[in-house]
Amino acid sequence: MPVKPEILKIQATAQSRLFKVEEIELRFSNGVERTYERLANRGRGAVMIIPVTSDNEVLLIREYAVGIEDYTLTLPKGLIDPGETAHKAADRELKEEAGFGSNHLHTLKVMTSAPNYMGHTITAILARDLYPCKLEGDEPEEMEVVSWPLDKLDQLLLDEDFTEARAIAALYMTRDYLQNEQTN
Amino acid sequence: MPVKPEILKIQATAQSRLFKVEEIELRFSNGVERTYERLANRGRGAVMIIPVTSDNEVLLIREYAVGIEDYTLTLPKGLIDPGETAHKAADRELKEEAGFGSNHLHTLKVMTSAPNYMGHTITAILARDLYPCKLEGDEPEEMEVVSWPLDKLDQLLLDEDFTEARAIAALYMTRDYLQNEQTN
Repeated sequence: MPVKPEILKIQATAQSRLFKVEEIELRFSNGVERTYERLANRGRGAVMIIPVTSDNEVLLIREYAVGIEDYTLTLPKGLIDPGETAHKAADRELKEEAGFGSNHLHTLKVMTSAPNYMGHTITAILARDLYPCKLEGDEPEEMEVVSWPLDKLDQLLLDEDFTEARAIAALYMTRDYLQNEQTN
Repeated sequence: MPVKPEILKIQATAQSRLFKVEEIELRFSNGVERTYERLANRGRGAVMIIPVTSDNEVLLIREYAVGIEDYTLTLPKGLIDPGETAHKAADRELKEEAGFGSNHLHTLKVMTSAPNYMGHTITAILARDLYPCKLEGDEPEEMEVVSWPLDKLDQLLLDEDFTEARAIAALYMTRDYLQNEQTN
């Protein structure tokens, strides 16, 4: 592995309610110096839940995403609250956003979103053995739950409302994991 | 499809060299009002390149990612420059980061990264028919190029240096696309 650059200085350059921007001065092992900007870490990371029914269907949600100013088809997800484990957060978000609890959670992978610009991580968690259970969250409106057969993932990818890379990655990992489980 | 919320107000709340934060006031169709923050769009989007050799190996790069303060294994990627098409940007970034050009580019999918917080898109582009060609970019150091068999994607996912959701999604889409091509 290469030798990591030396961090010469970290300095906050902008701050809003949710976002904090840092400037970071680095010296690479070859002597080259660079100044980068990144979003500072906040919180304890996030979870993305892949709820799979006994019929091998995945429960997607349709929610408004203000970044793209449109509704989008994605997986339930949310920040881990103080004192929560990732699995506890996954079970809570699943109840709030899709109206289901899970008796069988399994961590697939800790993913990064844009590691060049932020340290933020999201853990993909497979949720099975589902049962109806609705918790009130802070959602401004009820989310539509859309059931989709896991073996028709190729058709889902053609849908222009389904674009989130983290959800694409999570669904493929789920499909592979369940196929391997059946084979072994 | 649900009725989109009405945008009542958009206001810049923080600004640095790279990042601009906006506050956006919304009224949902059920009358509920919310104020969200998001990163404003900059630029023309980005490309992520999946370079596949004639031996069905993918060329990964190992680069320093300041968000996680560590080296990470990912795919070549970068912003689309003014006047460039996505394919032109893909070819340029591939030459700068991996030292290869491509005579056969194919767009797989336009992906979003975190649509609740930003409108930023990245287009996954499969690159085949590769030939050695190095362009100088603005990289502070030479990037290591790591060749990985596409049919050993499951082992790559176990690697803790390979975490970027957009790269995971891009590699799975590539594997499926190439398998379908062989079948049809």
